Amino acid sequence: MVKQQMKSNHLKTLLSGMRPTGRLHLGHYFGVLSSWIKLQNKCKCYFMASDWHALTSDYVDTSMINNNTLEMLADWITIGIDYKQSIIFQQSKVPQHSELFLILSMLTPLSWLKRCPTYKRQIKEIKNKDLNNYGFLGYPVLMAADILLYKAEIVPIGDDQLSHLEFTRDIARRFNNFYGNILIEPKEKLNKISRIPGLDGRKMSKSYYNTILLGETNDILKKKIENLFTDPLKIRRHDRGHPDDCVVFTFHKIINTEYSDIRKKCIIGSIWCMLCKKYLMEILSEFMGPLEKKRKNIISDKTFLEKIIKMGSQKAEAIAQNTIDEIRKAIKF
Amino acid sequence: MVKQQMKSNHLKTLLSGMRPTGRLHLGHYFGVLSSWIKLQNKCKCYFMASDWHALTSDYVDTSMINNNTLEMLADWITIGIDYKQSIIFQQSKVPQHSELFLILSMLTPLSWLKRCPTYKRQIKEIKNKDLNNYGFLGYPVLMAADILLYKAEIVPIGDDQLSHLEFTRDIARRFNNFYGNILIEPKEKLNKISRIPGLDGRKMSKSYYNTILLGETNDILKKKIENLFTDPLKIRRHDRGHPDDCVVFTFHKIINTEYSDIRKKCIIGSIWCMLCKKYLMEILSEFMGPLEKKRKNIISDKTFLEKIIKMGSQKAEAIAQNTIDEIRKAIKF
Repeated sequence: MVKQQMKSNHLKTLLSGMRPTGRLHLGHYFGVLSSWIKLQNKCKCYFMASDWHALTSDYVDTSMINNNTLEMLADWITIGIDYKQSIIFQQSKVPQHSELFLILSMLTPLSWLKRCPTYKRQIKEIKNKDLNNYGFLGYPVLMAADILLYKAEIVPIGDDQLSHLEFTRDIARRFNNFYGNILIEPKEKLNKISRIPGLDGRKMSKSYYNTILLGETNDILKKKIENLFTDPLKIRRHDRGHPDDCVVFTFHKIINTEYSDIRKKCIIGSIWCMLCKKYLMEILSEFMGPLEKKRKNIISDKTFLEKIIKMGSQKAEAIAQNTIDEIRKAIKF
Repeated sequence: MVKQQMKSNHLKTLLSGMRPTGRLHLGHYFGVLSSWIKLQNKCKCYFMASDWHALTSDYVDTSMINNNTLEMLADWITIGIDYKQSIIFQQSKVPQHSELFLILSMLTPLSWLKRCPTYKRQIKEIKNKDLNNYGFLGYPVLMAADILLYKAEIVPIGDDQLSHLEFTRDIARRFNNFYGNILIEPKEKLNKISRIPGLDGRKMSKSYYNTILLGETNDILKKKIENLFTDPLKIRRHDRGHPDDCVVFTFHKIINTEYSDIRKKCIIGSIWCMLCKKYLMEILSEFMGPLEKKRKNIISDKTFLEKIIKMGSQKAEAIAQNTIDEIRKAIKF
């Protein structure tokens, strides 16, 4: 009975990270951050600014990485990540990441990395950066080190990252096989919404210039919504629309609780696209207004942000060192 | 004038390392250690026990690495490496090695590693270990990190390692190109004697079971010398010999200052092989006797050895951290 109680009281450990690419957008919010907010009460959370990972592809120009980290951190805090409850830290400030990366490197069959689907896809798709480097091939090894260092049991991911988590489990199992049961095999928690459309209907992404930023000002927000394309077959109000092919409706579906009403009206031609946009604007404005104000305050105090990440990184380092101590004992180093 | 004086007083920085595979043998002594002894008065020396490197190929069984490190250290001190003058340290005790390894990973084109001659040769030749892992491919990256971390200007190597040093210079140049002039391109110092024969005439190597250990006891030494094969065409004393095809003579050539006299006598058939071996035994015995005694003393006090390597590693860490600080500033991390 007591044992059962203890078990139910155990907060599972969760790790999630983001590459610091600058200000975050609605894609990040609905894809990842909204679930972080929910999970931070249910789990012992580690939220990591993955600046080493940013180096894998942005080594030619690193000038923005540090500032991007602070911008991202400001967004995290703005949307409600609690730095007192969760551990917010910067990967490169915790030296144990590179140590475990080195150790796991020795155990990683090259074939596991070469057949990684995300690696193959990115090498094929990303043409404006030279990704044929040793560090980029080892991306999953570093990611595994990030997760295993904190013995994370849960890792929230999109389904495109499933192969990375499988790799992490495989390498943890291989380590444990050689040296005894030290590392924890993490489980994925799949994000419900994996694809947020951008202004042009493609996936919302900084590199497509199709984002709505968190804390976007009302003016810019208005312009962006006004310029959205709607269903080209619905020209006049009474034309019947095809909401599932319309970006405006996709946003409603994500952010408006009464989206099914909008859908009905669009299909039977009882709502004009401009009105539909107006509703969306109202909802977004209500959501963004407070964020904009809060964010402005937070980003204005960079010393405060730096302090948060420094403190979090110190906490993370203590935990990481525990794991490294166990690992060193196991590998007899 | 003053500037010139300062320049001539500058002790160049030297780094050299050995993988801890256990007790050292004459191959190590004449190939590497004898030059370390000379160089330690002329340079600021860093001598490294490369235990992370041992992991690249020996990850399946790591139980011996730590003890091997102490055995090797005992040999270093026995033959005259001065731990007060030079910095003797253990790679894995200086966390900055893994950090620089991670940073350089990001800058290393895969093609540089794949076309590395030693990599290709070892993958082809070594069949009893699975070397197809990510860490083994990155061996030159870790080696470059070892060297660049201390801004070593000189690295004593055998000619089989020239490609590694070229890689180190290439990656230093690439780093400096991207981020400014931080890293020093090291120069090689080629070991004069690159190949010491073992008891069977092949290269002396632990894996061939053909070694004469440093500090070998007189009894074992005697047996090993007695069992050496000599020129098969010289059966009786007066037969003319072919010293250049005889292992015993090769040892004379390395260790006996009067080897040319032996050579003459062998060629004209005025010396018997047993006598030639007796001379060799006398010289080796004179060399080994004091070593055996000294080594016994040193290895009996493991606490002392551990203290030396701990202190050296702390000194090394301070220097390494300076370089990492400069690097982090340069890459804006």
